[in-house]
Amino acid sequence: MEREELFKKISIENDKKIVLLVLDGLGGLPLKGKTELETARTPNLDLLAAESELGLSHPIAPGVTPGSGPAHLSLFGYDPLKYEIGRGILEALGVGVAVGARSVAVRGNFATLENGLVTDRRAGRIPTEKNREIIAYLRGKIKKIEDVEVGLYPGEEHRFVLVLTGDGLDDHLTDADPEATGKPLLYAKAKSVQAEKTARVANLFIDRLTSELAGRPPANTCLLRGFAQYPAIPSLAELFKLKAAAIAVYPMYKGLAQLVGMEVLAAGRTIADQVATLKQHYAAHDFFFVHIKKTDSYGEDGNFSAKVGVIEEFDRWLPEILELTPDVLVVTGDHSTPAVLKGHSWHPNPVLLRAAFQRRSPAAGGVLDAIAPASGRSRGKISAAAVPAKFSESACARGLLGNFSAMDILPLAMGNALKFKKYGA
Amino acid sequence: MEREELFKKISIENDKKIVLLVLDGLGGLPLKGKTELETARTPNLDLLAAESELGLSHPIAPGVTPGSGPAHLSLFGYDPLKYEIGRGILEALGVGVAVGARSVAVRGNFATLENGLVTDRRAGRIPTEKNREIIAYLRGKIKKIEDVEVGLYPGEEHRFVLVLTGDGLDDHLTDADPEATGKPLLYAKAKSVQAEKTARVANLFIDRLTSELAGRPPANTCLLRGFAQYPAIPSLAELFKLKAAAIAVYPMYKGLAQLVGMEVLAAGRTIADQVATLKQHYAAHDFFFVHIKKTDSYGEDGNFSAKVGVIEEFDRWLPEILELTPDVLVVTGDHSTPAVLKGHSWHPNPVLLRAAFQRRSPAAGGVLDAIAPASGRSRGKISAAAVPAKFSESACARGLLGNFSAMDILPLAMGNALKFKKYGA
Repeated sequence: MEREELFKKISIENDKKIVLLVLDGLGGLPLKGKTELETARTPNLDLLAAESELGLSHPIAPGVTPGSGPAHLSLFGYDPLKYEIGRGILEALGVGVAVGARSVAVRGNFATLENGLVTDRRAGRIPTEKNREIIAYLRGKIKKIEDVEVGLYPGEEHRFVLVLTGDGLDDHLTDADPEATGKPLLYAKAKSVQAEKTARVANLFIDRLTSELAGRPPANTCLLRGFAQYPAIPSLAELFKLKAAAIAVYPMYKGLAQLVGMEVLAAGRTIADQVATLKQHYAAHDFFFVHIKKTDSYGEDGNFSAKVGVIEEFDRWLPEILELTPDVLVVTGDHSTPAVLKGHSWHPNPVLLRAAFQRRSPAAGGVLDAIAPASGRSRGKISAAAVPAKFSESACARGLLGNFSAMDILPLAMGNALKFKKYGA
Repeated sequence: MEREELFKKISIENDKKIVLLVLDGLGGLPLKGKTELETARTPNLDLLAAESELGLSHPIAPGVTPGSGPAHLSLFGYDPLKYEIGRGILEALGVGVAVGARSVAVRGNFATLENGLVTDRRAGRIPTEKNREIIAYLRGKIKKIEDVEVGLYPGEEHRFVLVLTGDGLDDHLTDADPEATGKPLLYAKAKSVQAEKTARVANLFIDRLTSELAGRPPANTCLLRGFAQYPAIPSLAELFKLKAAAIAVYPMYKGLAQLVGMEVLAAGRTIADQVATLKQHYAAHDFFFVHIKKTDSYGEDGNFSAKVGVIEEFDRWLPEILELTPDVLVVTGDHSTPAVLKGHSWHPNPVLLRAAFQRRSPAAGGVLDAIAPASGRSRGKISAAAVPAKFSESACARGLLGNFSAMDILPLAMGNALKFKKYGA
């Protein structure tokens, strides 16, 4: 039996609530001897860690640095090597475009064509505002090619997303990208008979766009990369019988949540908004994915102290989440983004799991007694002396959960929520 | 190469002895801050733990609670998702019936039929003694249906096991169970052409039984659930070249051991009897599975202190086992049965592995010097001060073996017994 079959077989519905709090890129590396998480003043997380099961999770496999797509699939319980999310789909999710089963999405670059040769693969990184103008113009000009609908969506600078929708489309195409300047346009080629129509339509699109933009350099042609169809992923409802909701601010994470069948709630823009959304919808779902983006953004920028600041801001809001008394609470990252590396890394994620039936005994009094809600008077007033541990990568390395696959986080949460019945007699 | 192929290829016979001591449902959860194992006074286990490799093992996967069947398959080195043991087979094993390759076993319930409707699916939970009387009567009446032999075995209360033996039988059948009261009898249906004969015979059996028991309510009909054939599992001899023996008191565990080709030794009824059996047969085998049941039974009852008591009783007999100086000794559970949950759970099992070539150094003097045999004078006289560690779930979480799959326990024991030759050159 495959693991997904197992989950389908043993999952049951009950009224227990699972809250998965994901601080994107949470894990870090030391600067002056301490990681971002170790540097942050996190009295609430520390108190929670003292009565939680801790561990370190690998998103894909030891040593392997994930992108956001596979890292989140793993967090949602899916094998990220079984389900691949194509670049085009991820770009579409990133600009907030839903892509259906009859569509192929692909990432576009505006580029510069001079005397039949591509002289700039990014059209001088035109301003985003300019990009929006061009896309608006093209939308009026190119609506259909053969019987295929053309969807165009602006991204940042020179980037856009093309979504082709129609019958008989297929994503087994080579990129339409010469990959170097000083070369002529390169057209897409079908890798299978099924993809010939899509290749023809995509190449007609390149010619139409180039014709429409003639005489308007620098953005007077385009390259298309990463043709991709919507992956056929079973939903969290199918696998785990969960009524899952996502509270994410950024489009890509809303899109990833939609990929696995979560309902995307209106999240606002701040952590405060996200916590308010969680409270408001708490009765209606039994699984909540809350995605905090800025830890990763500042990590990517190499801004150690700003990443520390986001962790501390999250910590101040934690008591409001704990007030909901979720049956299972998980705090983790999707991958590490150490500021010193200015990018995603392969280092495993700190994981904190708190539930009723766990081996780590609650400290005397318990975290809920000690942590006053953020809105209350004593917010942030816990003394360092009262905190028996630090939530950190090194504490997680010594935790009860050990080193494990991030794919096991959701099943662990399911077990702890008594949402799995016994396997076999 | 599949892992089973690997094992077949690298296993060798030698004179080393492996003893696998399984305390069923050993792992627990804290009550007043300590688990059952942490509460138990276990000076011998503690001293042994101080010079053993420790870890935590997952029977199936993190978060997944196993039944006894898959949990034991995993302990014996088999992938419990590859080999499924059907309910009927497990019931047959539970009442001590051997089921061969030409048989289909199924669990029966005596039930009550009134005016053509099932009014009680358990026949008022008739006393076990009454069940035995009815089965004895039916054995005299129903011996064969067509060319198929009928075997009938009483269980507890309203439960019995039906074993059909003949040519051309197959277990791809739906249950013969209306699943609710107030409905007529539901007959078994073949899910494939191969199972049509079995369905016909099973349904004729239901009619014959109902006719024989007419006018004898409450047990005047039956339901049949979980048709199952013997699973085709390679033996421990095939996979590991082991001459394996089982010392178990309860029929189901003897049956599970037989499934993988172990010789089942007469174990008696107490831990003392089991230790005596181990000593008596020590020369004749190179692998011993010793199964202690009561830890699980008391866990299922929610009787924390009685479970503690069984662990302490086991600890008192441990020195007698150590006197045999097994080359590899493993002490573990098949799954956790925390008294606070009154049932099996998903929490990983404490594992202790002691062997000659391990990274955990023996304490000064060594456990064999310090532990006097149970039959000797100084039994239980080790002072607490002399014990450098506690054998516990939390010590195992910090152990050298880490968190791992229970499937790896037997291969680990094989390696430590020098029963695996080098793989590759």
